[in-house]
Amino acid sequence: MKHFLHLIALLSTFSFSQNWDSTYLRNIYNEALSNGHAYEDLRSLCKDIGPRLSGSSEAEMAVLWSKLRMESYGFDEVYLQEIKVPHWERGNKESGWIKLANGQLIKVNILALGGSIGTDGTLEGDIVEFSHMDELKKAKRSKVEGKIVFLNQAMDEQQISTFKAYGGCYAIRGNGAVESSKLGAIAVVIRSLAMPVDDHPHTGSMHYEDSIPRIPAAALSTSDAELLSSELKKGKCRFVMEMDCRNFPDAVSYNVIAEMKGEHPNEIITFGGHLDSWDTGEGAHDDGAGVIHCLEALRILKVLGYKPKHTLRVVFFMNEENGNMGGKMYADWSHDRGERHIAALESDRGGFSPRGFDCDGDEKYITMMRSFEALFKPYDLHAFNKGYGGVDIGPLKTTFKGIPLFGFVPDSQRYFDFHHAPSDVFENVNKRELELGCAAIASMVYLLDKNL
Amino acid sequence: MKHFLHLIALLSTFSFSQNWDSTYLRNIYNEALSNGHAYEDLRSLCKDIGPRLSGSSEAEMAVLWSKLRMESYGFDEVYLQEIKVPHWERGNKESGWIKLANGQLIKVNILALGGSIGTDGTLEGDIVEFSHMDELKKAKRSKVEGKIVFLNQAMDEQQISTFKAYGGCYAIRGNGAVESSKLGAIAVVIRSLAMPVDDHPHTGSMHYEDSIPRIPAAALSTSDAELLSSELKKGKCRFVMEMDCRNFPDAVSYNVIAEMKGEHPNEIITFGGHLDSWDTGEGAHDDGAGVIHCLEALRILKVLGYKPKHTLRVVFFMNEENGNMGGKMYADWSHDRGERHIAALESDRGGFSPRGFDCDGDEKYITMMRSFEALFKPYDLHAFNKGYGGVDIGPLKTTFKGIPLFGFVPDSQRYFDFHHAPSDVFENVNKRELELGCAAIASMVYLLDKNL
Repeated sequence: MKHFLHLIALLSTFSFSQNWDSTYLRNIYNEALSNGHAYEDLRSLCKDIGPRLSGSSEAEMAVLWSKLRMESYGFDEVYLQEIKVPHWERGNKESGWIKLANGQLIKVNILALGGSIGTDGTLEGDIVEFSHMDELKKAKRSKVEGKIVFLNQAMDEQQISTFKAYGGCYAIRGNGAVESSKLGAIAVVIRSLAMPVDDHPHTGSMHYEDSIPRIPAAALSTSDAELLSSELKKGKCRFVMEMDCRNFPDAVSYNVIAEMKGEHPNEIITFGGHLDSWDTGEGAHDDGAGVIHCLEALRILKVLGYKPKHTLRVVFFMNEENGNMGGKMYADWSHDRGERHIAALESDRGGFSPRGFDCDGDEKYITMMRSFEALFKPYDLHAFNKGYGGVDIGPLKTTFKGIPLFGFVPDSQRYFDFHHAPSDVFENVNKRELELGCAAIASMVYLLDKNL
Repeated sequence: MKHFLHLIALLSTFSFSQNWDSTYLRNIYNEALSNGHAYEDLRSLCKDIGPRLSGSSEAEMAVLWSKLRMESYGFDEVYLQEIKVPHWERGNKESGWIKLANGQLIKVNILALGGSIGTDGTLEGDIVEFSHMDELKKAKRSKVEGKIVFLNQAMDEQQISTFKAYGGCYAIRGNGAVESSKLGAIAVVIRSLAMPVDDHPHTGSMHYEDSIPRIPAAALSTSDAELLSSELKKGKCRFVMEMDCRNFPDAVSYNVIAEMKGEHPNEIITFGGHLDSWDTGEGAHDDGAGVIHCLEALRILKVLGYKPKHTLRVVFFMNEENGNMGGKMYADWSHDRGERHIAALESDRGGFSPRGFDCDGDEKYITMMRSFEALFKPYDLHAFNKGYGGVDIGPLKTTFKGIPLFGFVPDSQRYFDFHHAPSDVFENVNKRELELGCAAIASMVYLLDKNL
């Protein structure tokens, strides 16, 4: 009988707690959907600041903008963490042409890859196409030497998750210059890492190795990549390009941080995204949406009068795109302050309709996350899987052994239409989809704080 | 032992069949994503035809277009079913102004509601606002008589399903004219049934009753509705409008039908959407996406060499928007031909990222649908619920007692940005989201055909 009563008591506590949580989530969603600040905050970040690459004056304005916006919400603390960031500029010249055998020039849309050296005036050469990174790696030096390499590897459209398709192609952007240069190429142009065939080139980070000569690297729009490939099928082509992008000495910049102190103030749940963006478009989905998701999540919890167990800390990381110095230095800094990080969450997959969360952590955390599934069902979240947290929060995993990382998972279908492209602008973010993301993240932070 | 072997045999059949189905679905998705015709078909329907309201010459061109496109895919049969449809035209004049007390005029964006009478020149009157249909119904005649009623009831943004929010407001459009006229109003303007606050008015059907005087009815854009409401808070306003829309005698039109004959040719699975659209925008999401979903689903099954048990029939229904004559006459016609309908499926909720299917049918059909859930999981479909089929296939339920109806459920968040508005154009449909819808529908039709 005693056991039975115990069980009844336990079940009613559980049911009471589930009801309480269910009501709390409804309040979070109502605040996000009826009184939300996210859409206007994102508009202002995109339009009053615009693109904000690390080291640029726009990035510094974005730091100021973020601090002011956070202060306006009256959190317990708002402050900056100073960091060092790479500083690369696109410059003013950026042009590409296909030069047919008869001398005819066809202008194409290119974007230098971030970190690329310039061409030092006009660069012209024969062009040699590879349809896959592996094909280039196996090529004879004689086929490549003195030429411009064209890496025309398309994202696999049969992948349902576009991030998987992106992962499968990532090497052409990250390692294309190094692999081409090893074989004596004078430059590399890649097919943009984008799902649709359209006219927008998509930039992104690339790297050099000290022992390998540095060559210029650019992305062609997917439609220009198809054009170039079809011209090459007809006969030999040359390619002409001019870019005056260049690297500058590292610059000072900042992570921007806001927090609500917890009952246990030294136990931290960090959630954030990255404030920097590529220098094209407005960094609306990547990752304006992510930082605004997290800012709005904290605002909602504050407005609802939530008293956290742990310190809830929103971090706008600087420099995810080309160095991740914000993420790395944040983990070190938190460790040096003697803090105990108990979980971290990142939003860096766009402002689309929420699908769920990934968890990069022990089985017990995945089980815990899955126990929230019923609470999220009314809001159409259904995907709670073992997976990836995010680039910015990644270093916390090494610094704070065993902490679970969570990645917000929105619908991925449209992300690579906009990613790193001039089309990543505020107008391509839907208000409700953004707001539902804020509510999903506020709900997850609330549940993590209560259950960890 | 015998039972045990039986069980093993049964389990292996089950597992073999699940593997087979799982491979079949993968093939369907690959065809949709790598060799899909849907996006180009939708582009052509939207751009070569455009909006296609029942009775218009564009609707007749759309019938021709559909028949030719179906014939190009080499299905077993392609034919037209003749029907009668209402014929209403917007005319050339359609303007609205707020007239402030000092005489200042503010131009606003209006669209006549479909079926509305015109204003017979310029109509001007004092305006009286109601924030809810129920408020109008309770109003005294003296408050309304001789005035223009302004129904400013907003869609409930806290609903997660935007269709539920739409359902909650539908009456202001459908019954606003009748309820206003009962109290002596001279016209009615409604806040557009749209989720965002923007400048697009959204049209849609309305009705009159024989015993109640007919008054003109129009929709204001949501931003103009907010403007008018705020002006009314400052003081009395008048409203000026001119519309020369009018009704014409019924016209002849057609449902367009394509089929793959089944092993049991007289047992029919119908799937479709509606070919007609409102006369504004291009009917891209509503319901160009839906008809193309179904056409492409049949094309995929044909290309894969599928031999159906039942006759698989795609119907492009005419006149869903203002009369549903296509749906009604199709059910009668099928019944008169002595056919046996065993299931029907409709796509009329836009070309967005798939979420699942609704089933309007007995518990056994819902159980069957849920048994498909694991097969759909790799494609991110998760919502398999008792729910609604669709307007066009609705009459089949009465004619063929007990048949299950299925409604395709894509993500609903952006639908009411575009629904019945000038913004419902091809550019607002995403290629991959559309293609994933085609594959989901082809998969469901395949599974229904095998399991029914």
